[in-house]
Amino acid sequence: MRLSGEHCRPLDHGAHPIPYNEAKELAREVPEWNLRDTSLEREYRFKDFGESKGFVDKVAGIAEAENHHPDIFISYNKVFLSLSTHRAGGLTRNDFILAARIDQAFQPA
Amino acid sequence: MRLSGEHCRPLDHGAHPIPYNEAKELAREVPEWNLRDTSLEREYRFKDFGESKGFVDKVAGIAEAENHHPDIFISYNKVFLSLSTHRAGGLTRNDFILAARIDQAFQPA
Repeated sequence: MRLSGEHCRPLDHGAHPIPYNEAKELAREVPEWNLRDTSLEREYRFKDFGESKGFVDKVAGIAEAENHHPDIFISYNKVFLSLSTHRAGGLTRNDFILAARIDQAFQPA
Repeated sequence: MRLSGEHCRPLDHGAHPIPYNEAKELAREVPEWNLRDTSLEREYRFKDFGESKGFVDKVAGIAEAENHHPDIFISYNKVFLSLSTHRAGGLTRNDFILAARIDQAFQPA
């Protein structure tokens, strides 16, 4: 995949969200994610809390390395992630890069 | 604190939520938590994502040890926890014990 080979880039304060057409195009590279107006969302299911937590540990490591942090919701065997670039008020290429990198780390239960 | 010295107990399938009066009484022992109809909720704030994650690691360890798992929401420097006993369809003493144990592990940023 192309996006998963990229790294998130620092954004200045005047950063803008990418146009919707471009977002739709990038979303085709991360087809498991739901494209919302200002976010990318995906739910993962695991065997139990321990597996969910193991996945969140990986996500946290990627987030710190990329300095881009998803919202993370853990409910026992389910992990819900929401990606958005708050500084830009919507989606940037960084969100799609992070989605692709997270999917690389995901091993289905 | 009394509750933080207890451990969560296994519940059978016919378990019932505790009466609201009893819940209100127990809630006095964990005053930082918001008592809802079927849950106990608390938000914690930290310096950054790394501190949030460190706290969630502790919460996860307690949850696994007690075999009782809160819903966990991480948004950068904020961690929101919601405790409920799904098997009982509401709050049991276990939720208050878990709240007290989690607060013991919490060190304000």
